[in-house]
Amino acid sequence: MVVYTQFEDVAYSPCGIPFVHGKEIESFDRLFLATKQQYKDQGIDVHYETTVESIDTKRHVIKVQGEGEVRYDKLVLATGWNYRDPNLPGGDLKGIYRVKNIQRAREWDSFLDTVKSAVVVECGLIAVEMVTALVHRGIKVTVVDPGPWPMAEVVDPDIVDPVRAGWAEAGVTTLWGEQVTAFGGNGTLSYVETTAGRIEAELAIIGTRKVPNSDLARAAGIALGGTGGIVVDARMQTSAPDVYAAGDCTEIPHGVSGVPLQGLSGSHAYAQGKTAGINAAGAVREYQPVYVPWAMLAGEWMIGGVSFGETTASAVGMNYVAGTAKGITRARYYPGVKPITVKLLADPDSRCLIGAQIVGGEGVKERADFLAVAVRAGITIDDLATMENVYSPAIGALNEPIQMAALAVQQNFRR
Amino acid sequence: MVVYTQFEDVAYSPCGIPFVHGKEIESFDRLFLATKQQYKDQGIDVHYETTVESIDTKRHVIKVQGEGEVRYDKLVLATGWNYRDPNLPGGDLKGIYRVKNIQRAREWDSFLDTVKSAVVVECGLIAVEMVTALVHRGIKVTVVDPGPWPMAEVVDPDIVDPVRAGWAEAGVTTLWGEQVTAFGGNGTLSYVETTAGRIEAELAIIGTRKVPNSDLARAAGIALGGTGGIVVDARMQTSAPDVYAAGDCTEIPHGVSGVPLQGLSGSHAYAQGKTAGINAAGAVREYQPVYVPWAMLAGEWMIGGVSFGETTASAVGMNYVAGTAKGITRARYYPGVKPITVKLLADPDSRCLIGAQIVGGEGVKERADFLAVAVRAGITIDDLATMENVYSPAIGALNEPIQMAALAVQQNFRR
Repeated sequence: MVVYTQFEDVAYSPCGIPFVHGKEIESFDRLFLATKQQYKDQGIDVHYETTVESIDTKRHVIKVQGEGEVRYDKLVLATGWNYRDPNLPGGDLKGIYRVKNIQRAREWDSFLDTVKSAVVVECGLIAVEMVTALVHRGIKVTVVDPGPWPMAEVVDPDIVDPVRAGWAEAGVTTLWGEQVTAFGGNGTLSYVETTAGRIEAELAIIGTRKVPNSDLARAAGIALGGTGGIVVDARMQTSAPDVYAAGDCTEIPHGVSGVPLQGLSGSHAYAQGKTAGINAAGAVREYQPVYVPWAMLAGEWMIGGVSFGETTASAVGMNYVAGTAKGITRARYYPGVKPITVKLLADPDSRCLIGAQIVGGEGVKERADFLAVAVRAGITIDDLATMENVYSPAIGALNEPIQMAALAVQQNFRR
Repeated sequence: MVVYTQFEDVAYSPCGIPFVHGKEIESFDRLFLATKQQYKDQGIDVHYETTVESIDTKRHVIKVQGEGEVRYDKLVLATGWNYRDPNLPGGDLKGIYRVKNIQRAREWDSFLDTVKSAVVVECGLIAVEMVTALVHRGIKVTVVDPGPWPMAEVVDPDIVDPVRAGWAEAGVTTLWGEQVTAFGGNGTLSYVETTAGRIEAELAIIGTRKVPNSDLARAAGIALGGTGGIVVDARMQTSAPDVYAAGDCTEIPHGVSGVPLQGLSGSHAYAQGKTAGINAAGAVREYQPVYVPWAMLAGEWMIGGVSFGETTASAVGMNYVAGTAKGITRARYYPGVKPITVKLLADPDSRCLIGAQIVGGEGVKERADFLAVAVRAGITIDDLATMENVYSPAIGALNEPIQMAALAVQQNFRR
């Protein structure tokens, strides 16, 4: 097995980068899973800083820069994603940071010590984590985003409200419904032009949405979908024989709507990679349509969801009945108790759960995982309204907010 | 509506008592939900320190000490539980504490300041919490229990192992497979006799299992089940017309085995109380068989489960295939990451989940809630092996331990 990567490293945790910048994690070294020697010892031949220039799917050959043509029996594409290019004047100035590569992150981290003021250019999920990191570094942050609220593509306004309030408290300036129009400065960024005026800043964080890095596949004539992601079947096979793909370069059907999605999470990429590898090696494993549980830290809050919120359900014309409950994570008198809000969406006919949104102080990831399984299994709002729950003062409240939200949905069904 | 209680208070949180003793919670006052005046203002007529002596189900009359006969249209019994009486010589000595009533707890709390050495007589769930509380108070603790390990009625030995190790580290002496045979002292407890010898102690905590307090119902000719709990239907109606029962005085069928259970949790009692109340008031709500998610703090660990562990499944002669996975709760490099172990049990024929056991540092309650819904919904081990999960360094690991445990069960199916 030979691995080609244009990068200096493989298999570290890029998801940890914002938290090293934010000083929650002491060093970038912590993000590596293994040393290069360890991969070698396992018999994995990694060609670092090596560009694959093209694929000839008929001849089963790839063209590798500096190595010439290399034959494959099976090929797995894991070319990942890029930030959508904001395509703005001044985009080549120094001081414009796309958080992604760990070696670049090491360099940027020293630069952060010199920065007083930063602009976040569109506020995707990684950018939300970077807002917290910059605040922790004492940097004045202005978020400029064309959406009506943070992460509007995935989260409802009522759910993201505590995050917005937390940002305001932390001194973050937010410009919703506005756009960055140009970067300015003399070789180095010194200001950002926006539809709301000029902002002085030495740093710009590109937080545009993830787009599939599928150029190599496209050039090889491999089928891409409407999202620009590589089309794969349940075994992660592309349209080309013996060519598989996994991770952010692909698109995967949504379990409820059937609409192809791209830009899922690291755990999705990991499961897809295992599926592609197992099938490429001759065994059979099938990947399932996705229900997309997601959650993350956003300032002092955890925020997450499953499948549809009200905003996304409305956007795709899906009917739903929703209900929301505000609860707590432990007994009201127990130290460390945190608020938590759960919103559930049900299909008006089947009463099956079709989506969820959650914001709270703890236990958001576990509830998102649960509700994604519940959507997939066709569990109804009535099942959740009669669910049992653990009550123990130190770890769970008398009333489980998921059950309370299900009761609220039942109420709204009666209207 | 008239409420009769033999106690001084209603509707506080007795579950919080061990944590006030342990000093996690500053005051017993925090455990009260409302003042007596607030209940009065809501039109609830509570007769405190009032004993109901008997029920005449034919005449729809109760006999109240000091008040005489009182007629009812509908009656709800919520007489709760008692510790099984260990029935030992010296049982009337001062210094033998049954943790239950908040006013007694206030008195005992001052006494704890004077105690150097305590014996826990059988180690049920409340007793496990009291072990931690006594350790926090600097009291030397000896646990004497006839079972082979702590909470052997609900938990498997491998799952409770970290708790045992934690207790050993905290200096707790444990005598498994041993019994207390007598209490000794001159009016006041000064030693406990056990099958393993005499232990000096000024305090004994009774930690025997909960038994239904159903004497009033029995005397009235209301049907009791094999557990001694009041038999109720889905609407929480007893065998007597217009008499309902809820909480620890009842028995409820287990969803998997159909076997009646008693001694469930506070959230079960609460849901049953609402069901009984709604039906008594003329509407219809049905309570479901239970799958019994449970979890609690045990020293530094959280421990929990759903329905069956290997020990209980074996005890009732139920076939199963089990699998266990050790995971982590956040990214391995993120501060506050904790270990977590999940064991799943599946039915050998249907491959449906039938039980779970969990021990870890966080996220145990949420996973127990999830898995109880999964058992009830008939979710299979294969569904869980392909579940999606949130990966975000600060709140969830790349691999969800529930999914890993499901993969382990699949492996064990292949053997």
